[in-house]
Amino acid sequence: MYYSQISKEQLNDECRALRAQYDELVKKELKLDMSRGKPDTEQVSLSDGILETLRSGGDCISENGTDCRNYGVLDGLPEAKKLFSDILDIPPENILVGGCSSLSLMYDEVVRAMLFGVAGGKLPWSAQGKIKFLCPVPGYDRHFAICEHMGIEMINIPMGQDGPDMDMIERYVSEDESVKGIWCVPKYSNPEGTVYSDETVRRFAALKPKADDFRIFWDNAYAVHDLYGEIKLANLFTLAHEYGNDDLPIIFTSTSKISYAGAGLAAMAASKANIDKTKKSLAIQTIGYDKLNQLRHVKYFKNAAGVNEHMKKHAALLRPKFEAVIRAFRDELGPLGVASWSEPRGGYFISLNVVPGCAKRVYELARGAGVTLTTVGATFPYGIDPLDRNLRIAPSYPPVSELKEAVHVLCLCVRLAAAERALSEK
Amino acid sequence: MYYSQISKEQLNDECRALRAQYDELVKKELKLDMSRGKPDTEQVSLSDGILETLRSGGDCISENGTDCRNYGVLDGLPEAKKLFSDILDIPPENILVGGCSSLSLMYDEVVRAMLFGVAGGKLPWSAQGKIKFLCPVPGYDRHFAICEHMGIEMINIPMGQDGPDMDMIERYVSEDESVKGIWCVPKYSNPEGTVYSDETVRRFAALKPKADDFRIFWDNAYAVHDLYGEIKLANLFTLAHEYGNDDLPIIFTSTSKISYAGAGLAAMAASKANIDKTKKSLAIQTIGYDKLNQLRHVKYFKNAAGVNEHMKKHAALLRPKFEAVIRAFRDELGPLGVASWSEPRGGYFISLNVVPGCAKRVYELARGAGVTLTTVGATFPYGIDPLDRNLRIAPSYPPVSELKEAVHVLCLCVRLAAAERALSEK
Repeated sequence: MYYSQISKEQLNDECRALRAQYDELVKKELKLDMSRGKPDTEQVSLSDGILETLRSGGDCISENGTDCRNYGVLDGLPEAKKLFSDILDIPPENILVGGCSSLSLMYDEVVRAMLFGVAGGKLPWSAQGKIKFLCPVPGYDRHFAICEHMGIEMINIPMGQDGPDMDMIERYVSEDESVKGIWCVPKYSNPEGTVYSDETVRRFAALKPKADDFRIFWDNAYAVHDLYGEIKLANLFTLAHEYGNDDLPIIFTSTSKISYAGAGLAAMAASKANIDKTKKSLAIQTIGYDKLNQLRHVKYFKNAAGVNEHMKKHAALLRPKFEAVIRAFRDELGPLGVASWSEPRGGYFISLNVVPGCAKRVYELARGAGVTLTTVGATFPYGIDPLDRNLRIAPSYPPVSELKEAVHVLCLCVRLAAAERALSEK
Repeated sequence: MYYSQISKEQLNDECRALRAQYDELVKKELKLDMSRGKPDTEQVSLSDGILETLRSGGDCISENGTDCRNYGVLDGLPEAKKLFSDILDIPPENILVGGCSSLSLMYDEVVRAMLFGVAGGKLPWSAQGKIKFLCPVPGYDRHFAICEHMGIEMINIPMGQDGPDMDMIERYVSEDESVKGIWCVPKYSNPEGTVYSDETVRRFAALKPKADDFRIFWDNAYAVHDLYGEIKLANLFTLAHEYGNDDLPIIFTSTSKISYAGAGLAAMAASKANIDKTKKSLAIQTIGYDKLNQLRHVKYFKNAAGVNEHMKKHAALLRPKFEAVIRAFRDELGPLGVASWSEPRGGYFISLNVVPGCAKRVYELARGAGVTLTTVGATFPYGIDPLDRNLRIAPSYPPVSELKEAVHVLCLCVRLAAAERALSEK
């Protein structure tokens, strides 16, 4: 880092200069937000054709004659299953289409495991004392929140270039019977944007769990969310079958960042045994999910090709935002060596690692200058970033102009925090 | 009963005559269904205007400026809360609007109580050994299924003209700490169509539970589903407050039989403490429910007056069906004294009690003649009708002409089963 190489005097000057710049920014009373991992208005507007797909009662009939305005169909319309089958490359009979929220599907799946156990498991998770989940970090706060809420102990697994540390995962999974699950965002991981390598996916498929009720929670949230052309994730469902591990993966996805966020479709894919077990509880929980919304999506997108065409429009809107952030990082932070960051080819986030011990300080400084960042620690279990260095940047929501302003503030805060830290260590 | 008053010879003749009639019916190879408590196609078509409420992105903004195509709003749009507030006469701040399924809201509420306990309760239900629910019978099979699935013991409470046996309920609730809940359909109860009297509702409000975590699951599924003008159910929410029992009731309703079945809106109403406790878990389970569907409903129905006008159209379609069934019961069963039945002023079902010990026989006979009835026992916990006499009749789905044919078959089966039984007892 540049700041540790200069003299104390120079560093003092630098701090003073940065502080002066910061004070000027504070005066501008900005109100900018880089914390929200959600599509912007232009993006959701891309799907407005969906509103016109069902205009009359006659439009509400599914291809097998089901009147979607009435009760019935627990696990999704055949054509909706086919759509997700096409997207995920998993047979339709292994797909369950449910509601608008893949988070709910995951939460409910954990609840079912807690109360009733998983397919083939001898006991409910809640009847086995302390149980544990492996959590690649940094990761998705809402995954960790589910574990914390359920009292499931979380173990940090460091992420690398090819995905999480598989040696560590294999050791935990094969040796510790209380390890029941792992959270993965295998494509464009949240927040780093890492795509798990084929080798990593294969090692997941080949896991030999000590527990008879271990599951891989494979949250393929960004399955088709490429910014620069398609990157192919290896197919865990198929690979798991190769290793006779059909029941290991439970795969989730949704159209929240394809059609409408929170008003799209969510789906789950898994082995027949897993799906059957889920449906047994689901039949008690509901008569069925909203089939009209399923029909709307199928009529609008038709198939994976339709979705992919649509995703190009999202990419066109998102690319300049990702690039604005990364360019600023390269220009303003790169030469000083005060941070490292991911340069994702898709997904919704950029991960920024500042000087260890400085993330909270950066967050506070940014807040002071009117820039909201995701809470520090959110990307780690229990909200604790052991190195206090990771910041999750969400470039999707603000307009490019605001984003540029916000990221410039952020960069200044990163530099100031690093300089202060270097000075305190002189 | 007529058949027990005639001679064995006369009874033999009667059986032979009925059997001959039955055999003629069997030859007709009918395929009729009175088992499905769902609206018919004409009914769901009444709401097709809902499809036209959101035509473009600009229509998708809520009254407080929320873009309903994007993430956010955990517990429902303000205008959707207001709509349910208006229907239930409960303040909007005590309402949570969630998804399409009130059954899911109930299931999830029980799950939360099992895993995390209720507001003010010391322990999760699942940590208290055997727990029990009171179940007014006959009742709604899906309520009982939730308890059975969770391993909650169910206790039958007989229904009377004014609602369930309150003496029995008061005794159980005040004396047995393991009694944690009761299922009620207080207006047009499923299947009898009973409306709980004001006195009954008041006694519910005044319960003094031994358990600190007892809850009344008040499934007001038919709040506005009057066939012959409005019948007012006393307001449990307000009354509970009078008795300082604000946290006792958890009230559920949905528009499944107002707008679209399984694609409408569901809502829950409860005290602040209950709602807060629910929202704490709900925030982990989802980012929010489909707000576009909330907006559609509000734009279409506007308020309770709009809903009530709409319900008159449902009533006009349903009345002839209820009347066809009741007329046949009166004409074909009444003079013989071989059955008793409810004559509901609203709701979706008619309850038919045949000669004790004969319900299963009637079901089998009807099936043999091509008429599907709700499985005998479905209206009781564990699927066991202790007297084997109750049949749930669902008149809403088949067209009137089919319904008339089906109910005639049913009446013949009831008579035949009664005559057979009387003969066996001679």
